Amino acid sequence: MPTVLPDARVSPRFAGISTFCRYPRLQDVAPEHSPVDWAIYGVPFDGGVTYRGGTKFGPRAIRDASQYVKRYHMVHDVDVCSVLSLADAGDAPVSPFDIKGTLDLVTQFAAGLGTPTTRLFAVGGDHSIAYANVRAAWAKAGSPKGGLPLVHFDSHLDTVDTLWGEQYSHASPFARLIEEGFVDAGSMISVGIKGPLNSKSDLDFARARGVTLITHDRIATDAAGALAGFVARIGGRPAYVTFDIDVVDPAFAPGTGTPCPGGLSSEQALGLLRQLKGIRLAGADVVEVLPDRDPSGITAFLAAHVMFEILALDASARAG
Amino acid sequence: MPTVLPDARVSPRFAGISTFCRYPRLQDVAPEHSPVDWAIYGVPFDGGVTYRGGTKFGPRAIRDASQYVKRYHMVHDVDVCSVLSLADAGDAPVSPFDIKGTLDLVTQFAAGLGTPTTRLFAVGGDHSIAYANVRAAWAKAGSPKGGLPLVHFDSHLDTVDTLWGEQYSHASPFARLIEEGFVDAGSMISVGIKGPLNSKSDLDFARARGVTLITHDRIATDAAGALAGFVARIGGRPAYVTFDIDVVDPAFAPGTGTPCPGGLSSEQALGLLRQLKGIRLAGADVVEVLPDRDPSGITAFLAAHVMFEILALDASARAG
Amino acid sequence: MPTVLPDARVSPRFAGISTFCRYPRLQDVAPEHSPVDWAIYGVPFDGGVTYRGGTKFGPRAIRDASQYVKRYHMVHDVDVCSVLSLADAGDAPVSPFDIKGTLDLVTQFAAGLGTPTTRLFAVGGDHSIAYANVRAAWAKAGSPKGGLPLVHFDSHLDTVDTLWGEQYSHASPFARLIEEGFVDAGSMISVGIKGPLNSKSDLDFARARGVTLITHDRIATDAAGALAGFVARIGGRPAYVTFDIDVVDPAFAPGTGTPCPGGLSSEQALGLLRQLKGIRLAGADVVEVLPDRDPSGITAFLAAHVMFEILALDASARAG
Amino acid sequence: MPTVLPDARVSPRFAGISTFCRYPRLQDVAPEHSPVDWAIYGVPFDGGVTYRGGTKFGPRAIRDASQYVKRYHMVHDVDVCSVLSLADAGDAPVSPFDIKGTLDLVTQFAAGLGTPTTRLFAVGGDHSIAYANVRAAWAKAGSPKGGLPLVHFDSHLDTVDTLWGEQYSHASPFARLIEEGFVDAGSMISVGIKGPLNSKSDLDFARARGVTLITHDRIATDAAGALAGFVARIGGRPAYVTFDIDVVDPAFAPGTGTPCPGGLSSEQALGLLRQLKGIRLAGADVVEVLPDRDPSGITAFLAAHVMFEILALDASARAG
Amino acid sequence: MPTVLPDARVSPRFAGISTFCRYPRLQDVAPEHSPVDWAIYGVPFDGGVTYRGGTKFGPRAIRDASQYVKRYHMVHDVDVCSVLSLADAGDAPVSPFDIKGTLDLVTQFAAGLGTPTTRLFAVGGDHSIAYANVRAAWAKAGSPKGGLPLVHFDSHLDTVDTLWGEQYSHASPFARLIEEGFVDAGSMISVGIKGPLNSKSDLDFARARGVTLITHDRIATDAAGALAGFVARIGGRPAYVTFDIDVVDPAFAPGTGTPCPGGLSSEQALGLLRQLKGIRLAGADVVEVLPDRDPSGITAFLAAHVMFEILALDASARAG
Amino acid sequence: MPTVLPDARVSPRFAGISTFCRYPRLQDVAPEHSPVDWAIYGVPFDGGVTYRGGTKFGPRAIRDASQYVKRYHMVHDVDVCSVLSLADAGDAPVSPFDIKGTLDLVTQFAAGLGTPTTRLFAVGGDHSIAYANVRAAWAKAGSPKGGLPLVHFDSHLDTVDTLWGEQYSHASPFARLIEEGFVDAGSMISVGIKGPLNSKSDLDFARARGVTLITHDRIATDAAGALAGFVARIGGRPAYVTFDIDVVDPAFAPGTGTPCPGGLSSEQALGLLRQLKGIRLAGADVVEVLPDRDPSGITAFLAAHVMFEILALDASARAG
Repeated sequence: MPTVLPDARVSPRFAGISTFCRYPRLQDVAPEHSPVDWAIYGVPFDGGVTYRGGTKFGPRAIRDASQYVKRYHMVHDVDVCSVLSLADAGDAPVSPFDIKGTLDLVTQFAAGLGTPTTRLFAVGGDHSIAYANVRAAWAKAGSPKGGLPLVHFDSHLDTVDTLWGEQYSHASPFARLIEEGFVDAGSMISVGIKGPLNSKSDLDFARARGVTLITHDRIATDAAGALAGFVARIGGRPAYVTFDIDVVDPAFAPGTGTPCPGGLSSEQALGLLRQLKGIRLAGADVVEVLPDRDPSGITAFLAAHVMFEILALDASARAG
Repeated sequence: MPTVLPDARVSPRFAGISTFCRYPRLQDVAPEHSPVDWAIYGVPFDGGVTYRGGTKFGPRAIRDASQYVKRYHMVHDVDVCSVLSLADAGDAPVSPFDIKGTLDLVTQFAAGLGTPTTRLFAVGGDHSIAYANVRAAWAKAGSPKGGLPLVHFDSHLDTVDTLWGEQYSHASPFARLIEEGFVDAGSMISVGIKGPLNSKSDLDFARARGVTLITHDRIATDAAGALAGFVARIGGRPAYVTFDIDVVDPAFAPGTGTPCPGGLSSEQALGLLRQLKGIRLAGADVVEVLPDRDPSGITAFLAAHVMFEILALDASARAG
Repeated sequence: MPTVLPDARVSPRFAGISTFCRYPRLQDVAPEHSPVDWAIYGVPFDGGVTYRGGTKFGPRAIRDASQYVKRYHMVHDVDVCSVLSLADAGDAPVSPFDIKGTLDLVTQFAAGLGTPTTRLFAVGGDHSIAYANVRAAWAKAGSPKGGLPLVHFDSHLDTVDTLWGEQYSHASPFARLIEEGFVDAGSMISVGIKGPLNSKSDLDFARARGVTLITHDRIATDAAGALAGFVARIGGRPAYVTFDIDVVDPAFAPGTGTPCPGGLSSEQALGLLRQLKGIRLAGADVVEVLPDRDPSGITAFLAAHVMFEILALDASARAG
Repeated sequence: MPTVLPDARVSPRFAGISTFCRYPRLQDVAPEHSPVDWAIYGVPFDGGVTYRGGTKFGPRAIRDASQYVKRYHMVHDVDVCSVLSLADAGDAPVSPFDIKGTLDLVTQFAAGLGTPTTRLFAVGGDHSIAYANVRAAWAKAGSPKGGLPLVHFDSHLDTVDTLWGEQYSHASPFARLIEEGFVDAGSMISVGIKGPLNSKSDLDFARARGVTLITHDRIATDAAGALAGFVARIGGRPAYVTFDIDVVDPAFAPGTGTPCPGGLSSEQALGLLRQLKGIRLAGADVVEVLPDRDPSGITAFLAAHVMFEILALDASARAG
Repeated sequence: MPTVLPDARVSPRFAGISTFCRYPRLQDVAPEHSPVDWAIYGVPFDGGVTYRGGTKFGPRAIRDASQYVKRYHMVHDVDVCSVLSLADAGDAPVSPFDIKGTLDLVTQFAAGLGTPTTRLFAVGGDHSIAYANVRAAWAKAGSPKGGLPLVHFDSHLDTVDTLWGEQYSHASPFARLIEEGFVDAGSMISVGIKGPLNSKSDLDFARARGVTLITHDRIATDAAGALAGFVARIGGRPAYVTFDIDVVDPAFAPGTGTPCPGGLSSEQALGLLRQLKGIRLAGADVVEVLPDRDPSGITAFLAAHVMFEILALDASARAG
Repeated sequence: MPTVLPDARVSPRFAGISTFCRYPRLQDVAPEHSPVDWAIYGVPFDGGVTYRGGTKFGPRAIRDASQYVKRYHMVHDVDVCSVLSLADAGDAPVSPFDIKGTLDLVTQFAAGLGTPTTRLFAVGGDHSIAYANVRAAWAKAGSPKGGLPLVHFDSHLDTVDTLWGEQYSHASPFARLIEEGFVDAGSMISVGIKGPLNSKSDLDFARARGVTLITHDRIATDAAGALAGFVARIGGRPAYVTFDIDVVDPAFAPGTGTPCPGGLSSEQALGLLRQLKGIRLAGADVVEVLPDRDPSGITAFLAAHVMFEILALDASARAG
């Protein structure tokens, strides 16, 4: 049991200082469980938003919501905490008025967590932070030439070149990651793109680079196959999963900054993640949870389960 | 018209002291409509919860929300109030600091409502109260040896043996009911089980006793058939339906204590209940509505319609 | 103990079908406690509003909130339920699309409650309903020539002549009651008037008729004395108290349709009501509670206590 | 580019006085973009409701929510603002205490907007206002004998004859429009009817007049085909689309006055609208958004996208 | 009547495109009412926050809330719209990722509004924007050497030198304005400072520059006199009023980013503003309204009344 | 600087795993800062409530809210973290279905924290937990014969003998603590008692034991003097402060289980605490925060500041 959880006989799930899913703080992990397989950390940053902010409070809300996440995954038939050594590494440093500066701080922080075998899970924060975590994950994965394969769940492409003079906002992480070689556009799949766009040309960047787009209107027919095919196609290359909570319909995730109606249900989202069974993970993130728009807490709660679902993919692959 | 509703020409649906669906209080039912077919009563108790409480306010919220529930069911083509004599029997007595004591009070209260032909509908309260209502319903049904067949909608199995020294919490009602002979495990079906578990062995109790499990990932393919088959299989034996609102996704039912993302939609839930057409009912409950987490009131509102849907099954069977 | 409350040993305050303060329904009052001293009834009507509606759900919310109101008043040293026989008379009939028609229905309903000694307490609904209850209270008080003395807590004067062609909206009840002789303008005091007006002439009607105005900026210096003096001045004449919850600051009563910042605190409001000690009451109302703008329920909760405070004045006067 | 939007380089989507989708006010439209193709206007009226009001604040909420609606529709591959000249015509005049009076004011106002080629989009307000906008749209469409074909998304039929003495409430618009010849019942389709009814006879009016009913339980199997068939059947006749937000499940649209559980998802609703591809539009409305029950704003946000979806149908037809 | 409001007989307060207090848009003001006395504009910017953001949505929320603000001020006995020509100038341009750049854009925008006699009222946005509006107001006031006298309502001093490398955040406007000569520190009064500080030295900047500090614990005894004395002392010099809504207790203004418990009531705040009677105004702002933390809307509503209260000071001075 | 806080240059107040006021976890305190002066711990328990539960989530909410509490107290002129070594000791163990069992666990846990000089601050949880912390604080204070002096802020006396068979619910802690000798009734003062009671005899227990009662109606005149006098009277005896958040009006603290209208403002509450200047503290608690009724988070935020205010009393006494 490499991940030791609090004893619920004395400390129920509503008790204690909140860490992600009640996993130990990184500094509290016993030597025999080190190095950890995953370092999960928050990035309390919303300086990259283009509309509604507040996602800097995402890590705190997701820590609290995640207290109820248990350890055994029924569909994959795997006890995540038995297979993986998991830890909460706290929050990355941020420089609130400096997007690129923050992203560099985060990359540096993440790169320093654990050992090269430690995988990185970033909890946002706005989607700009994916840039930072992908870079660190890429380095841990051995700096693969051509970049990491990437699975991208989102209503938006996030491939805008520049917005209000800024190249690193949450509208642009995948433009930068592709341009700078951290992501392999030909092995990138974007699932759930939907909603009104500013212009038809918004799709140009991704299409020109060979990103596979599964727009929402094709989800029912194409997504499951595309994801399973993606895993087969990349073979054993370590890949990254980035999950923007706004890929889910506002009914399921009201607490986000740029929601888009007509999205996935939670059931669909979790089901699509399960299609990635067998994937070898290089890192992951879940982003864009905005607690101030989440009066019932269902968005942060879903995000916590998305995190578990991704960890379960890794546990399943390792156990399997 | 055995159930006389207020005249909406003078008392619109937003008017009057709230009783369940505007049905008369039990003591106000006219002799010609007695004994009632169903006594609906609240159980304002949340002493059995293991995480978030507040379900003791469920009956009050559901009474208020149910004012808008009308009487004619389009799909079953039946006017529920024309077929059934229905009444609100008020709330059962409770002993807030004593789970087992409360359950005994509730059973005794319920058993005393109406006559032996009166069916019992309990409105929770947390799921621990199912133990009380099933016992009373079992007695009214003639104390059938081997227990009642039971249809169970829930994200959780509720078959934990003991939690923090307590055998009768909301984690355990079906363990107790099966062990004590009130429910026939071989004729029990649990629909919608999902989410992370503490351990794989959480499923052992139900599986060992022969409970039919339709986990959520098999809902789309198996549930409709399993429910229709269940009705056929039990024949005319009176059966009990217990509906934990958390079987529905948090988007549809945020107001509950242990929600689970990736659940049923309301449409699915109502559709699955309709698969029970033809069932002979011994009793029912709807539980785990937590008004303090329900800012738009949609959870209590859904629960009121679930109640109506179950009553419509009975009306349809009797009319049909 | 003329008012028999449920036995809290078996039915705690969170249990049971909600009636005002857990008082018995009028039809359930025992003969030895009849006729009741006060018939409390709801008026689920918001057809008279000029801005935000939703006050038709006020009676339901106040019934629920009032479950926690106890019986003994510490400052007046009186057990309200020991002195008074109190009952919930249900909701008055309404005709939702017809203001004047509704007001006539309400007056007729109220006039028929109990006996001539029964006092009437109306729970709104919007302030237009004061017109109906004052008329009925006036009749019960022996149709005093010149009308009833009246104490009016409000941010607004409610003496507009006509709005959008309507003479009986919630902007106008006191214009009508004065003109039609049900209220004695010379023995009327309006406390708490504040906020921007459409024009200086908005004050003309009240001033011309001799209404005593205690505008909010004079509350601290003048209100306590003016209210005590009012009681002394009217002597034993039965008087009416109308309490618009918007006299209280939005911090204390967010749930109302035309709030006004800079108002009374709850402490001030309850304190001012206590200045009426010794008043002989002909009737009362509390109005303008809008549950949809009251996410924490504090407005309905305050309104329930205002109701209790007014009843305690009567109990104190009778006991004293 | 007939519709000129604010330059997002200086006025981001969270900036500026809110007009529908940031379209210009009607009085600000440049001569070269006049007459506008669509005049979009609000009807701040909830005087026609039979249960929960507050929809008078719908236009304001939808204006604010619509700031994030962009211009290019991916599925129809059309830039709505490039094809159509669109404008916000402000709010129609209303007479808050007079339903029929308001409806006449609204019809007159709408009829005067733009030129005969200008199409009318009304944003409610309660559903009673459809009566007003359909009449005006009918006149603009050349007063076709027999009335307009109409597509109706709703949980309710809205064909009640009279309620509390009123013929023009939100329960009745289609009864009146059919009776008075503005809608062609034989070319009317109602999609999404569901929930408990007062009586089986509630369906009589629509059935007797030949309205095509797609009740919710038949949505999955029948709706797409029925809508596509409807477009084919009416040929080039200009038709009207009325969209009551309560056709969508309360999870997706909690902010409405008479919600009905078990409804459409947003995804389904938008998908069904897309089935109308090719329709020639005479006018449209989206109604029954109630901001006070919409704590996360998702209902108004969805309504704004429904509006865009309908405009995109027209743009697609004209571009196509 | 230099400010022409919509005719409420056809366009009630809940109708129409929202402008501040229903004042005309600047471009719609009639020539005979030009130049306007006050140009009120929004600054949708929250890039300067150090904790919770979301104030960029303040202007929109305050516009909506202000629809209910009327025109006549009872205490000052002045009809604001009869004395002053008022207009909504829309929102200033912003550059969301560039604080100083935005502040320069705002100053330039504001300086260009109306004529030199036009006074500037900025509606935030976070408090950083005061820097921009004070600069523009200072220029309109004739660029007085030594800067403008300033009245500052706030829980915080906002005189931090640099935070996370940034000199122009909402923690620093008054440090910059004093240093750069736009504000006369010796004629500045800060009212309502309270709450835990990072260090005693936080007070040094203001004290060293001679700012008059009325900390909250001295409000009851000192504030009224200090404010009246301030007006007397500055004589006829035009002065600026900056009002951070967090000076008010969170009970009255929950919707703000850095609340501080133990603050002013709304009644106190409005009362203190009235102590400025006679002040000659050079400009004003109200800032830090955060709609996402304001579920009942009372914060934006209060802010709208604060704006009216400040305008009434000017109207009173001019009328008087 | 015995309490080392995170460096805000890299970890702003919205960052990091939440501990009370960002104080270090007890296990992370450096040797040179040990033993700590105060161990602050949560008690996630609501098993003792008689009405609305949910206070078990109080510690988590207060930890999150307390991130914004700074270190220097302006009125007492003391830097709390410079004087005191403070730590977050995590949450006490609880036994959710066993009140007395939990209280014993908590006492034992608290007694084991730090050394005999370590003071104990408990963060509830419902008021029943005061029983546990007072016992432990009493032991640390040397088990003074006759019990500890106690200052009690509350709307309720909490001296009920037995409720529903339970002697240790949140209605009874002070009855038990007095009877069992842990509190010196003659040196106990209860401030803020108010609201309707079940009976006049509710006051008997406290009065008979000599508890000083400052009922709310006497706050303005008596409380400041009584508290200052209390400190003088007990001399240097270590005393305990228990603060039930419901002493504050629901406008300031909506998030609590048994609110009472007409209570203290936050300003009054903080001011009264400051009257205890000079008190020697044996321990303290703040209880009854119920996050599910606290949509804007102002209750937990106030509670965090109450905690700081009490710690500042101790720092001031030690520094002074």
